[in-house]
Amino acid sequence: MPGQRDKTERVDHLSRITQLRRKITKAGLSGLLVTHLPDLRYLSGFTGSSAALAVTRRAARLFTDGRYKAQAAEEVKGAQAEIVSGAPSVAAVQWLAAQPNAESAGFDPVWTSVADLARLKAALPSKLRRGFLSALPAALVEPLRLVKDEEELALMAKAALVGCKLFEHMLGFIRPGLKETEVAAELEHRARLLGAEGMSFETIVASGARSALPHGRASEQSIPTGGFVVCDFGVILSGYCSDQTRTVWVGAVTEDARRAYEAVREAQQAAIEAVRPDVAVGDVDAAARKVLRKAGLGRYFTHSTGHGVGLEIHEAPRVADGQKDILEPGMVITIEPGVYFPGKWGVRIEDMVAVTAGGCEVMTPTGKDFLAV
Amino acid sequence: MPGQRDKTERVDHLSRITQLRRKITKAGLSGLLVTHLPDLRYLSGFTGSSAALAVTRRAARLFTDGRYKAQAAEEVKGAQAEIVSGAPSVAAVQWLAAQPNAESAGFDPVWTSVADLARLKAALPSKLRRGFLSALPAALVEPLRLVKDEEELALMAKAALVGCKLFEHMLGFIRPGLKETEVAAELEHRARLLGAEGMSFETIVASGARSALPHGRASEQSIPTGGFVVCDFGVILSGYCSDQTRTVWVGAVTEDARRAYEAVREAQQAAIEAVRPDVAVGDVDAAARKVLRKAGLGRYFTHSTGHGVGLEIHEAPRVADGQKDILEPGMVITIEPGVYFPGKWGVRIEDMVAVTAGGCEVMTPTGKDFLAV
Repeated sequence: MPGQRDKTERVDHLSRITQLRRKITKAGLSGLLVTHLPDLRYLSGFTGSSAALAVTRRAARLFTDGRYKAQAAEEVKGAQAEIVSGAPSVAAVQWLAAQPNAESAGFDPVWTSVADLARLKAALPSKLRRGFLSALPAALVEPLRLVKDEEELALMAKAALVGCKLFEHMLGFIRPGLKETEVAAELEHRARLLGAEGMSFETIVASGARSALPHGRASEQSIPTGGFVVCDFGVILSGYCSDQTRTVWVGAVTEDARRAYEAVREAQQAAIEAVRPDVAVGDVDAAARKVLRKAGLGRYFTHSTGHGVGLEIHEAPRVADGQKDILEPGMVITIEPGVYFPGKWGVRIEDMVAVTAGGCEVMTPTGKDFLAV
Repeated sequence: MPGQRDKTERVDHLSRITQLRRKITKAGLSGLLVTHLPDLRYLSGFTGSSAALAVTRRAARLFTDGRYKAQAAEEVKGAQAEIVSGAPSVAAVQWLAAQPNAESAGFDPVWTSVADLARLKAALPSKLRRGFLSALPAALVEPLRLVKDEEELALMAKAALVGCKLFEHMLGFIRPGLKETEVAAELEHRARLLGAEGMSFETIVASGARSALPHGRASEQSIPTGGFVVCDFGVILSGYCSDQTRTVWVGAVTEDARRAYEAVREAQQAAIEAVRPDVAVGDVDAAARKVLRKAGLGRYFTHSTGHGVGLEIHEAPRVADGQKDILEPGMVITIEPGVYFPGKWGVRIEDMVAVTAGGCEVMTPTGKDFLAV
């Protein structure tokens, strides 16, 4: 799409493929098959829905079908594009097998189905059916994607700011009696008008007792007075996802609601302050959990503190209890503690933060003071 | 979600599982693991995002995690629901292995990754690691889903009619100078207000030369005068997808545009008239192709004529050249021929049709006369 292409022209896909080549060599492979579309987009710039990328130590070729001829010619960088009539992954594997001195090709077992693997093997010359294709013991592309480069951080900041504008708009819109779906409709419409290619996940608008459901997609329920409304939403802009949650109170405020809100807010702030290079993500989770435990709310915080975000809404690392992944500058994660009282109400506050050399930067700086509408 | 539950309460999930049991027995298996979420929803009614269903000749159990405790209790029919802390598919396979006289469990290799299979095998007692899990040579659940029952046809008719209302609304909205994304924004907003849970795929609004892209998602381009606008869109209602395309002309009409439009319309009508029980889907494709070939446009019709639709936007059968699947009453397919002149413009017209005893019923009866706006 023209808009997207302009924005990705500055991206240095070739250097990403060069980094990947080092990993391919280190893994002792002669080539790699890439079929997971976000990986493929990251490495080559291609945004179509059907493609496979083959990378060797010397060459890289992207295979797609006739529908994407013009698009591949314009988008693909750092690799040659080839149009094929059959399955792109089959063409990619056959090309890998035909390269000089081809001995082995890695594939990601997380993104390859048992049926696909059988088909790929069947497409190889018989002497290569055993041994040529090799399941990677650990992903090779995903670790590259975890650390965002400057261009990616700039694109993600734009996506995050669209999310912030949306929430500010919604503050003037949310009122008792509206259906949750009407709130979602307004939010998604506004997102589109602000240039979003789509929403990064099904919009959550959970009011009244439904606010106690961590995954309460907007329903036909009308917003009651005397309860929280949890709004958890994100846009896709230039392929990158935003993710943000704000919770507002509707009606006359009760003391326990305000206290729970402030505890979640304090927990979220503690976790944000724990984010810096060389810290394990489990320690970030622990920082939030500690505050809620102290407030007597520990057992109502029933999910993990956050997750990586980028070209996909859920990426590594999982910011969860005991997780040992180490933060590095350029990683982008969410910080989203919450407490949920089944049948009563729930609160969640979420920001996207980018790890910097000295700590982190909150990418979604919308206000978080307790608000009653 | 309350709205969805009401609508699916009439669905007889137990009879679906009974039908599946016959297939399990016929395949010589003692059990089946179901992990593809639309299959699982079809069989049990569960709409959450993380679950696995285990079916034996006598019992059926659905495994999900703590987030879905209340939802599983309310939604799941025809199977017992069990909350587990680890991966639901692992729990399901362990349960299958622990059943009396358990000898083998089938899994669908299309919906099982190489990594998942390794994890499932590792979770089995060592004597069962070889041989207990068996890749199905052909899907067992999908063939059941192809033929929609009365409740499903009623839900799909509702979804299709929302699509029709949307297009009628859009006819008063589309005008030169609007961005394609503004058109998509209006359409998606209206869909939400009409009760849609979401769109069934990324809305295509392709104007000017972009109308020649069969997959032209709405872009930042403004609609020019003197060209077609292809609108291809669908909603999700009670879990079921609609799918419809209409193409309108903007500006002063040219003779070749009108001629191409009429040829596509005639091709689409010919294909619809070919739809009836006992016909091979390849013959439906041929009916559309024949009309366009006669009009000298055969080589500009670059994709297949249609596809099955239901809980997923793309289901079997593929209505494509040479495909031998036989139509049966209750199947729902799309009929969507198009012609595309790269760099110039394109036209596509698409309806959803339900196969009936005597032929078929068009579920998306919006007008198809050539329209200039």
